[in-house]
Amino acid sequence: MDTKTIESFRNLRTPFYYYDMNLLDTTLRAASAAAARHGYELHYALKANPNPRVVRAVAARGIGADCVSGNEIRRAIRCGVPPRQIVYAGVGKTDREIAIALREDILCFNCESLPELRVIGSVARRTGRVARVALRVNPNVDAHTHRYITTGTEENKFGFPVADLPEAIAACRETPNVRLVGLHFHVGSQITDLAPFRDLCDRVNELQQSLGTTSLPYVNVGGGLGIDYREPDTHPLPDFEAYFDTFATRLRLHPGQRLHFELGRSLVGQCGTLVARALYVKEGAAKNFAIIDAGMNDLLRPALYQAVHPIENLTSAEPPRPYDVVGPVCESADRFAADVLLPAVRRGDLIAIRACGAYGESMASRYNLRPLVRTRFSDDPPRHASEAARQ
Amino acid sequence: MDTKTIESFRNLRTPFYYYDMNLLDTTLRAASAAAARHGYELHYALKANPNPRVVRAVAARGIGADCVSGNEIRRAIRCGVPPRQIVYAGVGKTDREIAIALREDILCFNCESLPELRVIGSVARRTGRVARVALRVNPNVDAHTHRYITTGTEENKFGFPVADLPEAIAACRETPNVRLVGLHFHVGSQITDLAPFRDLCDRVNELQQSLGTTSLPYVNVGGGLGIDYREPDTHPLPDFEAYFDTFATRLRLHPGQRLHFELGRSLVGQCGTLVARALYVKEGAAKNFAIIDAGMNDLLRPALYQAVHPIENLTSAEPPRPYDVVGPVCESADRFAADVLLPAVRRGDLIAIRACGAYGESMASRYNLRPLVRTRFSDDPPRHASEAARQ
Repeated sequence: MDTKTIESFRNLRTPFYYYDMNLLDTTLRAASAAAARHGYELHYALKANPNPRVVRAVAARGIGADCVSGNEIRRAIRCGVPPRQIVYAGVGKTDREIAIALREDILCFNCESLPELRVIGSVARRTGRVARVALRVNPNVDAHTHRYITTGTEENKFGFPVADLPEAIAACRETPNVRLVGLHFHVGSQITDLAPFRDLCDRVNELQQSLGTTSLPYVNVGGGLGIDYREPDTHPLPDFEAYFDTFATRLRLHPGQRLHFELGRSLVGQCGTLVARALYVKEGAAKNFAIIDAGMNDLLRPALYQAVHPIENLTSAEPPRPYDVVGPVCESADRFAADVLLPAVRRGDLIAIRACGAYGESMASRYNLRPLVRTRFSDDPPRHASEAARQ
Repeated sequence: MDTKTIESFRNLRTPFYYYDMNLLDTTLRAASAAAARHGYELHYALKANPNPRVVRAVAARGIGADCVSGNEIRRAIRCGVPPRQIVYAGVGKTDREIAIALREDILCFNCESLPELRVIGSVARRTGRVARVALRVNPNVDAHTHRYITTGTEENKFGFPVADLPEAIAACRETPNVRLVGLHFHVGSQITDLAPFRDLCDRVNELQQSLGTTSLPYVNVGGGLGIDYREPDTHPLPDFEAYFDTFATRLRLHPGQRLHFELGRSLVGQCGTLVARALYVKEGAAKNFAIIDAGMNDLLRPALYQAVHPIENLTSAEPPRPYDVVGPVCESADRFAADVLLPAVRRGDLIAIRACGAYGESMASRYNLRPLVRTRFSDDPPRHASEAARQ
C-alpha cells in the first residue's frame, strides 16, 4: 500500500474495509478478457461481496451475477446487472424469492432438488411466467478444500446426485411453465490446484455423453477458483488464463452450448483490506498480543474457517517481533493470527489484514453490539480533515 | 411448546426468534433469589443477547449488566439498568467507549492490561472523572469447554497473569484518577460441571491471601454457568443454587467484600427458540435433508462452535425419520443437525431449534443478503390474521 494511501487513513475512524478499486477493475478486466478468448460467460457470485460499489464495478465490465437470494437478485439489478445475465442458485429458495426471479425474468434458476423444481413450476404457473431451469448436479468431485466450503461430494445438501438426473430431466420436461436449459455444477471454493477442475470436466463430459444433452444450451461449471492468501502482492490476480484453459482443453461442449462460470472470491478477494488500529500491546509471559479494534464480527473467516490472512503493520518500520493479533470481542475465537512477525507494534499503529475482499464485509455482524464495519474506496473523493474527524 | 403457541406461528413469516418471556422471568427470579440468599450481586452479560425486550426484563428484576462495548453500556442504561450496576470488560476498550463509561459513572471497569489501565487513567484525567477499576486476573483454570470459549488459561488475550498482579496493583495506586476496587475473574463459558468453579475459588483464595486485598470491596468471579442443550424441557433452569453454593462454601471473602457474578447464557439461553419453516425435503441416496428457511446467518453456533441444539418438528405427528437439518445458505457449514430423528417432515412444517436464547440473535448477520432475523415474544399482543399476513 502506498504512503499516500496510508497517510489518508491516519484520521479515519477504524476499523474499515478498504477497497482498491483499481485492482478490482484490473482483476475484472483480466477475468473478462481470459473468458472472452473462449466465448465464456461470467457471473459474479454476489455472496462473496454484495457491496453496491463492488457490484456496480462488476456490472460496468459486463459481467453477470450469480445470486443466492431474492435480495441478491434485487441488489444485482439495482447495481446495473441486466436480469438476463443473472443466475440464481441455492437449496432453499422461498416462494417469494422465486417470484422475484420470475418477475425479473432472470436467465436461469440453478435448481437443486425435485421438490424445488415443483415449487418453481407452481410459482411460474401462478404468475404466468416460464422458468428457465438448469439442474445442479452433484458431481462427486472432492475439491480438497475446507470441509465447510466443499460442496461437490455425495454427502451434502447441494444438487442432484448423478443417479437421479434422468428422473430430474424427465420431471423438467413434464412440468408446465418450466423449461430445462442446461446443467449446473459447483465443486467448492478456494481451490488453488487445477486438478479438481479437470476432474469436473471429465465428469461433465461423461454426463453429457450418457444423458444426450445436445439440446441444452447452458452449461454452468460454477466457480471455486482460489486466491493467494499468503502472497497477495506477488499474486494479486489469479491465473484466469490457466483456469479457463483447463476447461477449454478438457471440456467437450456440444454445438450451441455456452459455458458459464460463477466467480466470486477470485474477482474480489484481493482488492479488499481490513484496516484496524492497534489499541493495546500486551506483553505476556509466553506471547505478545497486539489488540486491534477490528473483531471477529468484522471478519469472521479466521474464527469460522481457521483462515489465515496476511497482516501488516502499515505505520512501523521497527524490527519485527512476534504477535498474536487479536480483536476486542470477548471470545478466544477472536484472533486473526498467532505468532505473526510484525514491525514492532505501538498503540495507534494502523494494522492491515489483507485479502479480505471476499467473505469479509459480507459476513459481518454486530456481535457485542459493535457498529457494522465501515467501508472506504480508493476512488472516494478526498475528504477534508474536519470531515474525517467528524465521521 | 403448547398447541396454541404453535398455532399462533402458522401465519407468521419465518424464521424468527421466539422468546418465552415467562420462562425468562422465572429464570431471572430463580437466579436472583439464589444469589440474594448469599448477598451476591448479579450482572447480566449483554453479549449473550442484547435484545431490548430481554434487557428490560433483566433490569426489571433488579439485575445489573456486564457490558463489553460502549454500545452495550448505552443499551443497558436505555433498558433501565442503573449505571452503578454496570461493569465493563473487554481487552479492546477504545477511548470513546471508556469516555462513555466514565460519563455514565458505571460501577467498575474490569481492566485487562497495563496499557489499558494507563489509557483509562488518561481519559479519566482528561474528562475530570475517577475510574473505579478491577483487575481481571487470568487464573489459569481450564474450563474444559470449547477452546473458543475458554478464557481463563495462560495462553490467551484476557486479563493479567497472576505473576503480574503486584505490579498491576502498584500501577493502579500510582495512576491518578484511577481507584482500584477489586479483582475480576472469568474462566470460560458453557461450564456444566462445577469443578472449574471450585478450582477458581481456590485460586481466588490463594491470591487474596498472597496479595493482601483486604481493602478491595469488589470481587467478581465472572460467569460461565452452562445450560442443558440436550434436554431443555427437563432442565429449563440451571441449578443456580448449586452454583452459588459452590462459591458460598469454598470462597473466603474478606469482611466488607461483595461477590459479583456475570451470568449470560444461564439466564437467557433456554427462553429462546429459532422457529423456521421446512422449505424442501430432499431424499438423498445416503441422507434425507430437511431444508429450512433459517440459515447460519441467523444462528451461527453450529457452524462456529460445532454446537448441537435440539430440533423439533412442531407440526408433524408422523413416525420419526432421520434428517440432516440444513439452511439455505450456500455453504456446507450451514447445517443445524446431522441424522437427527424428527417426525416426518413435510414442506411447510414449523421446525423449532431450541435453546437459542444466548448467542443466537446476538451473532446474526445478513450473509447472502438475507434479512436480519425477526423476533417474536410470548407477551406480544395477539395480532390479527391480516396483520400477520402483511408482515
